[in-house]
Amino acid sequence: MRLKAIIQYDGTNFSGYQIQPNGRTVQGKLEAVLAKMHKGEHIRVTASGRTDQGVHAVGQTIHFDTSLTIPVANWLKALNTMLPDDIVVKDISEAPPDFHARFDVKEKEYRYFILNTKERDLFKRHYCYHVQVPLQLERMQQAGKFLVGTHDFSSFCAANSNVKGDKIRTITEISIEEDSAQQIIIKVRGTGFLYNMVRIITGTLLEVGFGLRKPEKVEEIITACDRSKAGKTAPPQGLYLWEVDYY
Amino acid sequence: MRLKAIIQYDGTNFSGYQIQPNGRTVQGKLEAVLAKMHKGEHIRVTASGRTDQGVHAVGQTIHFDTSLTIPVANWLKALNTMLPDDIVVKDISEAPPDFHARFDVKEKEYRYFILNTKERDLFKRHYCYHVQVPLQLERMQQAGKFLVGTHDFSSFCAANSNVKGDKIRTITEISIEEDSAQQIIIKVRGTGFLYNMVRIITGTLLEVGFGLRKPEKVEEIITACDRSKAGKTAPPQGLYLWEVDYY
Repeated sequence: MRLKAIIQYDGTNFSGYQIQPNGRTVQGKLEAVLAKMHKGEHIRVTASGRTDQGVHAVGQTIHFDTSLTIPVANWLKALNTMLPDDIVVKDISEAPPDFHARFDVKEKEYRYFILNTKERDLFKRHYCYHVQVPLQLERMQQAGKFLVGTHDFSSFCAANSNVKGDKIRTITEISIEEDSAQQIIIKVRGTGFLYNMVRIITGTLLEVGFGLRKPEKVEEIITACDRSKAGKTAPPQGLYLWEVDYY
Repeated sequence: MRLKAIIQYDGTNFSGYQIQPNGRTVQGKLEAVLAKMHKGEHIRVTASGRTDQGVHAVGQTIHFDTSLTIPVANWLKALNTMLPDDIVVKDISEAPPDFHARFDVKEKEYRYFILNTKERDLFKRHYCYHVQVPLQLERMQQAGKFLVGTHDFSSFCAANSNVKGDKIRTITEISIEEDSAQQIIIKVRGTGFLYNMVRIITGTLLEVGFGLRKPEKVEEIITACDRSKAGKTAPPQGLYLWEVDYY
């Protein structure tokens, strides 16, 4: 039986999603719990994609196969009881045997939280990026529009990435809004993302918001297909994998 | 020279404020940094009072004496550079040589944050107490009124406390309000507090908010002078030492 689960995690104390020999990872914790439930058998967990150290997830989606005959309703409780308190399973259900958490992704949404206040907030230090300089929201919104559509996003891909194939991706929607707590939230939806793409988009939009670059400059940056033309990579703690939609 | 500082800390990864042989403490970190600055000399830090493991501070106040001739303006930067990222010095200034962070307290304010939503919020798990059952705010407000004034608060003092002297304290103000994020915030101001007093008050108000006890019952609980008559001690992560006022 194939199960599909929606999970949340607080990325603060993880060395990212993907399992690695040393370091505490989300996949490592999930697979350790599943091994316990399956009497030591290794159960491989597949996610919609990895997230980096410090990056959070509100709607990460995974799948795995099981031979256990636990009713689906009991899985949720069993997993949440055994998982550490920084991973929560929000939903679990039976999926078709050919469902694939990575290959069947239709669209993903990421959100990046910027706390735009003079004073830093100690209690949010792991959950947003604190920017002291007042940001010019309207300029950022204008700049964001240039990113929507299908483009070669080479300028917005980490230089050390080993992406196979082209760097053409489609962003279906970008919105940049301020909430009541002086947080600027950048929402980016797309059919696929390159390594560090949302963090580089954020870093670039920030430079526009500071007044250092004109909004139209973003069009040039895309055309250049050169990572060095875009802004800095924004830090991980502001980024959330928010939602994954499937076909 | 005596210095007075207002500090904030995230209590999550501390075994409380007060220094102890094993365990990471706020006082321990402060004194370690001051020892470094004073070439190994032990500088004793005195706070307005201790806080327990997991309890946060937004306006804890401390004092210490120094022989260093650093301008006061540079102290803030020096301390914040050397302290770990879960302690922040918000303000530091010269105080009269007889100023005492504990003995000169006029009033203290604590705030307790209750997240009153069906779903728990993973990212707030260390910063509020999640209560699923909808709370009856008006009943809690009625109950709170009985606590204001000068009373023997024995019923609201941890049974294992070794308070010397009586347990008569004065609460000058209580307010219980809901914010826009479905958080119920209990503010308690008073001239002195017993061990676990705000957490036991919160636990008692919660039972009233659940509809398990009548608001008037609080008057009886006070009169009983018996810890077993009050509610459970609410967990630490919802509690913040918010402000300390001095004469």
